[in-house]
Amino acid sequence: MRIARVVGSAVSTIKVDSLKGAKLLVVRYASASDEPQGEPFVAVDAIGAGVGELVLLSEGSAGRHTSTTTTAPVDAVIFAILDSLEVDGVTTFRKS
Amino acid sequence: MRIARVVGSAVSTIKVDSLKGAKLLVVRYASASDEPQGEPFVAVDAIGAGVGELVLLSEGSAGRHTSTTTTAPVDAVIFAILDSLEVDGVTTFRKS
Amino acid sequence: MRIARVVGSAVSTIKVDSLKGAKLLVVRYASASDEPQGEPFVAVDAIGAGVGELVLLSEGSAGRHTSTTTTAPVDAVIFAILDSLEVDGVTTFRKS
Amino acid sequence: MRIARVVGSAVSTIKVDSLKGAKLLVVRYASASDEPQGEPFVAVDAIGAGVGELVLLSEGSAGRHTSTTTTAPVDAVIFAILDSLEVDGVTTFRKS
Amino acid sequence: MRIARVVGSAVSTIKVDSLKGAKLLVVRYASASDEPQGEPFVAVDAIGAGVGELVLLSEGSAGRHTSTTTTAPVDAVIFAILDSLEVDGVTTFRKS
Repeated sequence: MRIARVVGSAVSTIKVDSLKGAKLLVVRYASASDEPQGEPFVAVDAIGAGVGELVLLSEGSAGRHTSTTTTAPVDAVIFAILDSLEVDGVTTFRKS
Repeated sequence: MRIARVVGSAVSTIKVDSLKGAKLLVVRYASASDEPQGEPFVAVDAIGAGVGELVLLSEGSAGRHTSTTTTAPVDAVIFAILDSLEVDGVTTFRKS
Repeated sequence: MRIARVVGSAVSTIKVDSLKGAKLLVVRYASASDEPQGEPFVAVDAIGAGVGELVLLSEGSAGRHTSTTTTAPVDAVIFAILDSLEVDGVTTFRKS
Repeated sequence: MRIARVVGSAVSTIKVDSLKGAKLLVVRYASASDEPQGEPFVAVDAIGAGVGELVLLSEGSAGRHTSTTTTAPVDAVIFAILDSLEVDGVTTFRKS
Repeated sequence: MRIARVVGSAVSTIKVDSLKGAKLLVVRYASASDEPQGEPFVAVDAIGAGVGELVLLSEGSAGRHTSTTTTAPVDAVIFAILDSLEVDGVTTFRKS
């Protein structure tokens, strides 16, 4: 699962019925030190994440293994909000 | 899910039966500011998108989770037309 | 689905039973103007494509959603022969 | 399956129920000689791996084919601890 | 499916039960002329391949569509040994 930062949101009126009501957040991959990387893309939020938070993202068919995304055409889901990350014995991120 | 712009269409007479009647659109990935990126490829349209629109695209097995693509060899589906995108507090795209 | 050109074929006597009789074609990704790109790889043919044709390719689990590939370890299938492609209002490819 | 080195761990209080109790390890891809490569990401541990160990990682839907990850939004799982690797007739890694 | 060359093997005592007895081979992607490319990784062997052979590899969920890998966390399987490859009218590989 990739570390990602929530950087914004997407609004869409015309979409498949299975995603009516889904929260579509704009995310970017992030390093273990919370540095965003690469282009923004969109993920469905399954746990109440908000802009600015560092989260974990599952991609591919894993995106449909949450209660809110089971039958929808989802290939990226936010399933966890990160409290902290430790890499090589150093705390690289701690939620403030 | 990736942000993409619909840039054209594909015509194919000889194809698997499960995709007879499917609308095959040519798309390119796009930035949050609607700048196309990378090579064109093809996605099935599940919501009535048209050339020039900024859309959301699901890839992989997610492509088969719409009513029009359930049993077909589809690995990319357009499932939403974007109204607007907000990134880092700025509206980067608004449908005109 | 990616645009690809069929550039050759692969022969294998020792393979899993589920692919006995399958036609294994060598393909390369192609631009919308039929310019091959990147390294050759192999796809199963589900619609009678031949060397030199521009085709559509589905990858991942989509590769098993044709009548000839249902239970086989297939991650790439040719499911359509392209007649034409139109990008940005221009016909970039037309089958001759 | 990719060779990876376990380099740390992730802590998350707010996450989907299906991953309560799951051990989330931070990993990096590694060469056959145990040189880490690329950005850290997160995998679920299915076999009791620890920081510093060289492991095998399965990605995509394979991530849900262990007893601890069946119904969770997991796209990367550690399923084996490596004892040794041999490449081109040379032992490139041996667990110490 | 990717063309790959078998370059070695992996040994792991501690692994998930579903892969006890599985043959774990180290592979590298290869060109159609049998030139290895990129970093080594690991695939399960489903057809008795050996070091030095040029093979076909299926990745993703396709990796579980062989009799030896059905329920295991496998994302790469060797399913065919190549006899020959023909690209652009030229035989680029023939098994010796």
